[in-house]
Amino acid sequence: MTITPPALSVFETLESEVRSYCRGWPAVFDRARGSRLYDEDDHTYLDFFAGAGALNYGHNNPVLKRALLDYLERDGITHGLDMGTTAKRAFLETFQNVILRPRDLPYKVMFPGPTGTNAVESALKLARKVKGRESIVSFTNAFHGMSLGSLAVTGNAFKRAGAGVPLVHGTPMPFDNYLDGQVPDFLWFERLLQDSGSGLNHPAAVIVETIQGEGGINVARLEWLRALADVCRRHDMLLIVDDIQMGCGRTGPFFSFEEAGITPDIVTLSKSISGYGLPMALTLFKPELDIWEPGEHNGTFRGNNPAFVTATAALDTYWADGQTEKQTLARGEQIESALVALCAEPSAEGATYRGRGLAWGVEFPDRARATAICRRAFELGLIVETSGPDSEVVKLLPALTITPDELEEGLRTLARAVRETA
Amino acid sequence: MTITPPALSVFETLESEVRSYCRGWPAVFDRARGSRLYDEDDHTYLDFFAGAGALNYGHNNPVLKRALLDYLERDGITHGLDMGTTAKRAFLETFQNVILRPRDLPYKVMFPGPTGTNAVESALKLARKVKGRESIVSFTNAFHGMSLGSLAVTGNAFKRAGAGVPLVHGTPMPFDNYLDGQVPDFLWFERLLQDSGSGLNHPAAVIVETIQGEGGINVARLEWLRALADVCRRHDMLLIVDDIQMGCGRTGPFFSFEEAGITPDIVTLSKSISGYGLPMALTLFKPELDIWEPGEHNGTFRGNNPAFVTATAALDTYWADGQTEKQTLARGEQIESALVALCAEPSAEGATYRGRGLAWGVEFPDRARATAICRRAFELGLIVETSGPDSEVVKLLPALTITPDELEEGLRTLARAVRETA
Amino acid sequence: MTITPPALSVFETLESEVRSYCRGWPAVFDRARGSRLYDEDDHTYLDFFAGAGALNYGHNNPVLKRALLDYLERDGITHGLDMGTTAKRAFLETFQNVILRPRDLPYKVMFPGPTGTNAVESALKLARKVKGRESIVSFTNAFHGMSLGSLAVTGNAFKRAGAGVPLVHGTPMPFDNYLDGQVPDFLWFERLLQDSGSGLNHPAAVIVETIQGEGGINVARLEWLRALADVCRRHDMLLIVDDIQMGCGRTGPFFSFEEAGITPDIVTLSKSISGYGLPMALTLFKPELDIWEPGEHNGTFRGNNPAFVTATAALDTYWADGQTEKQTLARGEQIESALVALCAEPSAEGATYRGRGLAWGVEFPDRARATAICRRAFELGLIVETSGPDSEVVKLLPALTITPDELEEGLRTLARAVRETA
Amino acid sequence: MTITPPALSVFETLESEVRSYCRGWPAVFDRARGSRLYDEDDHTYLDFFAGAGALNYGHNNPVLKRALLDYLERDGITHGLDMGTTAKRAFLETFQNVILRPRDLPYKVMFPGPTGTNAVESALKLARKVKGRESIVSFTNAFHGMSLGSLAVTGNAFKRAGAGVPLVHGTPMPFDNYLDGQVPDFLWFERLLQDSGSGLNHPAAVIVETIQGEGGINVARLEWLRALADVCRRHDMLLIVDDIQMGCGRTGPFFSFEEAGITPDIVTLSKSISGYGLPMALTLFKPELDIWEPGEHNGTFRGNNPAFVTATAALDTYWADGQTEKQTLARGEQIESALVALCAEPSAEGATYRGRGLAWGVEFPDRARATAICRRAFELGLIVETSGPDSEVVKLLPALTITPDELEEGLRTLARAVRETA
Repeated sequence: MTITPPALSVFETLESEVRSYCRGWPAVFDRARGSRLYDEDDHTYLDFFAGAGALNYGHNNPVLKRALLDYLERDGITHGLDMGTTAKRAFLETFQNVILRPRDLPYKVMFPGPTGTNAVESALKLARKVKGRESIVSFTNAFHGMSLGSLAVTGNAFKRAGAGVPLVHGTPMPFDNYLDGQVPDFLWFERLLQDSGSGLNHPAAVIVETIQGEGGINVARLEWLRALADVCRRHDMLLIVDDIQMGCGRTGPFFSFEEAGITPDIVTLSKSISGYGLPMALTLFKPELDIWEPGEHNGTFRGNNPAFVTATAALDTYWADGQTEKQTLARGEQIESALVALCAEPSAEGATYRGRGLAWGVEFPDRARATAICRRAFELGLIVETSGPDSEVVKLLPALTITPDELEEGLRTLARAVRETA
Repeated sequence: MTITPPALSVFETLESEVRSYCRGWPAVFDRARGSRLYDEDDHTYLDFFAGAGALNYGHNNPVLKRALLDYLERDGITHGLDMGTTAKRAFLETFQNVILRPRDLPYKVMFPGPTGTNAVESALKLARKVKGRESIVSFTNAFHGMSLGSLAVTGNAFKRAGAGVPLVHGTPMPFDNYLDGQVPDFLWFERLLQDSGSGLNHPAAVIVETIQGEGGINVARLEWLRALADVCRRHDMLLIVDDIQMGCGRTGPFFSFEEAGITPDIVTLSKSISGYGLPMALTLFKPELDIWEPGEHNGTFRGNNPAFVTATAALDTYWADGQTEKQTLARGEQIESALVALCAEPSAEGATYRGRGLAWGVEFPDRARATAICRRAFELGLIVETSGPDSEVVKLLPALTITPDELEEGLRTLARAVRETA
Repeated sequence: MTITPPALSVFETLESEVRSYCRGWPAVFDRARGSRLYDEDDHTYLDFFAGAGALNYGHNNPVLKRALLDYLERDGITHGLDMGTTAKRAFLETFQNVILRPRDLPYKVMFPGPTGTNAVESALKLARKVKGRESIVSFTNAFHGMSLGSLAVTGNAFKRAGAGVPLVHGTPMPFDNYLDGQVPDFLWFERLLQDSGSGLNHPAAVIVETIQGEGGINVARLEWLRALADVCRRHDMLLIVDDIQMGCGRTGPFFSFEEAGITPDIVTLSKSISGYGLPMALTLFKPELDIWEPGEHNGTFRGNNPAFVTATAALDTYWADGQTEKQTLARGEQIESALVALCAEPSAEGATYRGRGLAWGVEFPDRARATAICRRAFELGLIVETSGPDSEVVKLLPALTITPDELEEGLRTLARAVRETA
Repeated sequence: MTITPPALSVFETLESEVRSYCRGWPAVFDRARGSRLYDEDDHTYLDFFAGAGALNYGHNNPVLKRALLDYLERDGITHGLDMGTTAKRAFLETFQNVILRPRDLPYKVMFPGPTGTNAVESALKLARKVKGRESIVSFTNAFHGMSLGSLAVTGNAFKRAGAGVPLVHGTPMPFDNYLDGQVPDFLWFERLLQDSGSGLNHPAAVIVETIQGEGGINVARLEWLRALADVCRRHDMLLIVDDIQMGCGRTGPFFSFEEAGITPDIVTLSKSISGYGLPMALTLFKPELDIWEPGEHNGTFRGNNPAFVTATAALDTYWADGQTEKQTLARGEQIESALVALCAEPSAEGATYRGRGLAWGVEFPDRARATAICRRAFELGLIVETSGPDSEVVKLLPALTITPDELEEGLRTLARAVRETA
């Protein structure tokens, strides 16, 4: 496939230099369906990125689309603040019946504003309010968002520098396997907590991703997560799982922490919760933590009702039984097999892979390699992104609805890109 | 009209206590069109709130709706991160041609994430980065958002307390007329800036609303805004106009600062920019400030393409000529006449009003009165909200597309609510 | 008098560039008595600076010297941490009998470490602990010390920049007459406090100097101080008077706030409390505020017992009756008369003066003039310093024990320096 | 010895509850000489505390006393701000000739105010100014002072809570052996520094004590200190050694870091630098760091000239040759032998000891034991204090000038106290 450089003029002349993905994928996209995107010149791209995890059910999923069109056509409430609406009620009831009850999760549901960082900000505010402390522990290579509260618990130095003020009240701890197995899990963290002379401000909460998506597809072991929950319990800290990228089925089960058998105190969801790529976010917490005063946290777009409609349809369609989880795990095995083969190729010497469900990463010894691979993959019609502090990991994040054939095709293209960049 | 208490169970049992508007308006809304909402029992409500300013063109505006449905039906890109898309290009070109060029505004355009607080956070980050200073000056009774950076420049003590950490790096200055004309404008602010012994950390920027919507419809005089711009220029501070609530035609012209003849360094837009109540936000700034590195600020939903589609349609439909501005000012005069009469009634003794364009406030000597009026108005089928630090102001924020008859009807209902709460 | 440039080599080669007074007074001083200093070449200097207010009873005051020598000779405890010692007991009893009881002041006494900034740090910590709030209000051109807590409530931008971190939790308010009488006292401060939307974090305390010594000899009117005490009382904020420079009789009475008839919640004393220039400081507070835990604030040199000895002697000698106060006021009148005459001279055109007791300042329209006058005065054998954010004020701070003749001599020299710099 | 409860009334009624040492040692001390203190009832106490390290040459050392009395008698300058004085010059020259030159140390000398926390505050300010960063790394169980800047890098949670504001800009790292040898030195610290995604704000400096006196006599190995210096060099961070308690010969050589063969960028000295228990402090730094502006950090008592006089005499007397160091090491061996025996006694089962020079600690398995031992020792006429976050360590800090007999006596008393509290 040959790609003609598109006319990007207005993007280059009018849009801020802050734009980024469009630089790596120099096309003007026009439409999409499932795992395929089409640019304005009708080039086709297979999508292994899924809107950074916001499109778990693919682009313009037909079931959700039908529900959305029906709703819009009949002039359903579009913008509802936090008013009661029939669409919101349907969502809440479905979320309760399909997600919370079968998992025995006791959560209250908050609509904190429709983006991930809003959910994280509300979670941190609530934890601090409940515990009466300022400090939060996060983990190396965590990513939680770009507004000031979320950024303070995000690891990336480049993003942090954008704050323009010192980012305080957060302390990083080593994520699972950060120290290559040389240190017992939580040895350092627990010593700090137990020792009244350690200098650690006692944290209100710990915020963690079960798999760090932006941080390089770093997969926490289930026993590590269980031990973390235990540390939190023993030291009176709330456990916040940021499930924005790894929730909504990305790792198999609806919540990424289900396999570990833990019940976090607070959970943030966004990205794929609406199912259709529409802005929506939830903050879930145990009922005894619900000490918010009415309106203490608010936001104009927290009642994005079209998103409630597609979210309800997505839950009904994909989560009423265990099929989605099973299929995700099967697709994951398909990826793993391909990565085993890929890493065994001479052109991928030294490469390692890791992942769970449909979130996978491949790391190359040459830290510039991942970027080259993604660039070549794009030329070959595959959309795939890097991850990690130095963009040193190729991240595979296909839609959960991708077919085995599409997956096979994409993995073949990836292998070719690897070979052609060796 | 009699309102039967609706079955709110799932809202009460599952949704967090943080919910607020739904408490004052105990209905379950189902659909809406223009300035009318309908609840599930088919009760009708006239809307003087317009989604807190997010629905300037009314609910489910038919022109925008058509564009949106067409786009969704043809599988246009829904979720686009910051990739180039045809929908984004159309928006950028239209924004340039219809808004920026005719006003001779040189701004670069940033998509900071689809909510107002994202836009404010990005504006503050950029200002601090450009100037290399942390401090920001805001104004008494300002409202800029709920995430940590925005909250630090928001006045409301109740909202601030929700942060759970001390809010720092911000200093409040008196908004126009805050000290009842007893003090020359900017006397205090300029003394602080000129005096190297004042103790004020020299600010990177000043952030201001031309009319404080949440703060009580406090209207800054044009000469005050001009003087503020001058203070900023003379003391090397950036001027940020937060036009999230008052922009997009709310006060008459597209930007609320146009009448003052000033060109802010940075402008934030959200709420009505998509025109359809869909989450979207923009940060505009002078090109010499565009020192962002690629990806230094990002966000999953900053490419909400359906919102770009309705935004483009809204600009084309309402801003290609001066009709909308003229009509808004005419409707504003209609309101003002009614408020003159209202405040002259015995039941409104001591009440005062203020406003511009289609943003108006009525304040009553008894600070509990506004809440009573809004409650009674709702019973009478009118949706209208309070504003101000003690909810002491009745805020009128109808859609710009409201008809003279609807406006008349609403104002009559309001007058009745005033009388019936005397 | 001709001054030969002394051999400053080790000061220039070994001591840090941070040194400052030694630059304006390029001599190597050797001994001193009363108001006279002698350098190593036996040049004599009359002292109008008194150790920045730390030598209210003159250099090496003979009564205090005798007590100190006796104590040292008999091997009295020199370094006592916060252990009970006979010297400390004698000081506490004398302080109670001579100072607190006659003035009906109920204060508990804390030894916070032997410098002014230690006293201020402890006062701020206690206020925050008592009120459970972080924010402190200070005043324009305040000076409270160089450690991080004190620096945050100090006005001088040059000193503040030395912190290397943003200085937060403090908000400056206008000191008396800061806005030239154009604004009613405390109008702005009270509006901020009363308005829950103002954005001011409710302060734990207000810290004030009755006369700002470093800030330019800015004299607060007694009614302003009374009104401030009233604002504090009405808004649940502690009133801290920093009497480090203006206490110990500098303005006439022992505490500078006595004339105003107010009783601050917390008072800091240092500089002249030991009377002999030895490091010592006190933090005084109302007994109900004494919620310190044992050892919660400590410091190695808080039991500088030689200083307790001279402090006790100073209180016994100078404060057992009202003579010192009377004499200070008389000397103050002598200064005032001379300044009236000085400011009437053509060479001082436009100069203004202000002061109380034995703290006076003369400000010249040409802001560089004060520095020139002080330099010339030094050449003429008079030690006198500038003050104010731009060093624009000549500050007169002679010992309280200066004789009328010495005072006359110094004022004559000052007048000559003024003429010779015109 | 029987101790009659002394009349403590004024301490109890007038002095703040913050007092602490006087609670554990309920006597009123009157005079002292060498290692003996006498209370007002002429009870004698042997001193194993030495003013928390401020009396390395004993109480009222006769050589220093003579120099001090001569100076005071001849009316030498007592209070000198930062003016040039003959006493200051003598000190600077002696410090250069006796201390800096023989050790080939290139430091500039700053007088930051006469207490340890002043020295630390100035060191932190300078490091931040030089590097343009806010963050400082300190160590678990560090103690650096009570003012806000120093407290933020101090470990003790109880002391930290006194701040009343969140303590930020500091991050604790594990001190040597903190993790019981389970983790390679600096593994965690270096990973954080190397990984741009770690979330650690890159520090301006690291501040460390070579032996943590307040933290429990935790002794850093020399190779650990060398490795730390290397980490600092490789990652562009300044190394600050806080030698306030362990400098001035406490561990043997004048500076405690000499044995490690490192040259810190900044060194703080206080406590025993004056030698006579008089308040004095120094901040030393490499000349290229001396970017202070004149007067950027100042303080009233930074020119405590009597302390300069005794400091000069102490350097001349004790540091002109290597005798003091040799003698300290010999006395240290005497202590170690005694502690070996002590820990072998059944009454001390499980006890461990550690130390260097004349700083030693004994830790007991029962964490309340150390307090009981010190209490009993006091009853037996020995002044000895606890240390560590839970006061779980008996700390031995005798004067360097203690005689072998006095040391023997004290160690016998300690052993008895151990037995009698078993």
